[in-house]
Amino acid sequence: MQPSNSLPLLQVCLSPALLSLYDTTGCTVVVIDVFRATSTIVEALANGASRIIPVASVDDCIRTGVSTPNSITAGERDGKIAPGLQYGNSPLAFPPELVAGKSLVLTTTNGTRLLHMIKEASSIVIGAFLNLSALCDFLIAEGKPVLLGCAAWKDRINLEDTLLAGAVVNRVADHFSINCDSAQMAATIERQCSTGYLDFLRNSSHYHRLAGYGLHEDLAYCTTADLRPIVPILRGKELVRL
Amino acid sequence: MQPSNSLPLLQVCLSPALLSLYDTTGCTVVVIDVFRATSTIVEALANGASRIIPVASVDDCIRTGVSTPNSITAGERDGKIAPGLQYGNSPLAFPPELVAGKSLVLTTTNGTRLLHMIKEASSIVIGAFLNLSALCDFLIAEGKPVLLGCAAWKDRINLEDTLLAGAVVNRVADHFSINCDSAQMAATIERQCSTGYLDFLRNSSHYHRLAGYGLHEDLAYCTTADLRPIVPILRGKELVRL
Repeated sequence: MQPSNSLPLLQVCLSPALLSLYDTTGCTVVVIDVFRATSTIVEALANGASRIIPVASVDDCIRTGVSTPNSITAGERDGKIAPGLQYGNSPLAFPPELVAGKSLVLTTTNGTRLLHMIKEASSIVIGAFLNLSALCDFLIAEGKPVLLGCAAWKDRINLEDTLLAGAVVNRVADHFSINCDSAQMAATIERQCSTGYLDFLRNSSHYHRLAGYGLHEDLAYCTTADLRPIVPILRGKELVRL
Repeated sequence: MQPSNSLPLLQVCLSPALLSLYDTTGCTVVVIDVFRATSTIVEALANGASRIIPVASVDDCIRTGVSTPNSITAGERDGKIAPGLQYGNSPLAFPPELVAGKSLVLTTTNGTRLLHMIKEASSIVIGAFLNLSALCDFLIAEGKPVLLGCAAWKDRINLEDTLLAGAVVNRVADHFSINCDSAQMAATIERQCSTGYLDFLRNSSHYHRLAGYGLHEDLAYCTTADLRPIVPILRGKELVRL
């Protein structure tokens, strides 16, 4: 991971509270919120949703749902479907028979917020374990500087988003110049996951929170690599399948 | 590292930009700036300095030096002794024959800033590899909640401070309740240092910066554990040996 001038830079931002330290102009920015916003976005688009409209609040979600034909609304607060919305944040709640051809209006606590914080970028795409290899192929093919942005949990650095950032770094390292301690840390941590991502996360704070809600199936699904080989990309205010 | 209600909490804050997320009231807060502020503080006090007066700017440093009898001033900017000050930031610049019985007025970019940002705490102490075991013994003996605060580099998370935080976590884990992803990350990273801390840091951004200034001897010294078994503690506006 020695810097090389001929390769584009790759950096990792571990919390939205640190985003202002990074210049995202001209970058491909990857938004990562493994549990569960970006996993759900990947899953719904893979299952045929025509687009995802990420919104900041439950009120926004209800309003946008009403004004958008052929849409469904989704979002949780404290692990339950938010009052006024139709579905929660589970990636498993959006099978093809529900979402095909529909617009999904989605509000989440951390992922949506980070998405809206990025002001300048060449493109903004969505990363999850579910689309890990497809995402890496895209970053390499683009050949632009990359910022991997972790959504974290209310600005607190979390293990699962860091782990995915590390998985990306370890897969694309030969194609980028990496002189970023956060990237090196994430990559080091990911290399320790010999027993699998889910097992490694069993002591993480978010695992405990979601397991406490009984969401074990979500935890297992969101940490499975490469089930959905697509790349969601932001076009205007919507996420669509590339 | 399962949380246990009977033990005090231990948390890790990887950047001053994240400090506001942590409640430090009643905590023992450890300030960590391995390259090189906290290493220099430990070294100077171990060598007999009567106290360290940390100040925010070069101007402050000059002023405080003039008004403090039997003092010396120190601080660097861009790897060189700052104009108007007597010494730099190298821990090796403060042998007993220079500092014994003297007040060291010190300004540094990151460590001093973090020290001044902590408003509420039971006590504020200084951590470095040089005093690793003494620090751990103190934290265990105190038995209070602990926040390990990394000074980072202009708010960017760095590998060397994270590594020291991880070294502390791995040594004291049995005595604390740890439900903090940053602590788990730091501990995981530190367990990978089988070939030694300095070797592990060779690809870090700060290593490159300081090696570029020719400071290899400083890098090696600051990553050596337990040469100085003392604990510097903040009393009012001064750091003294506990």
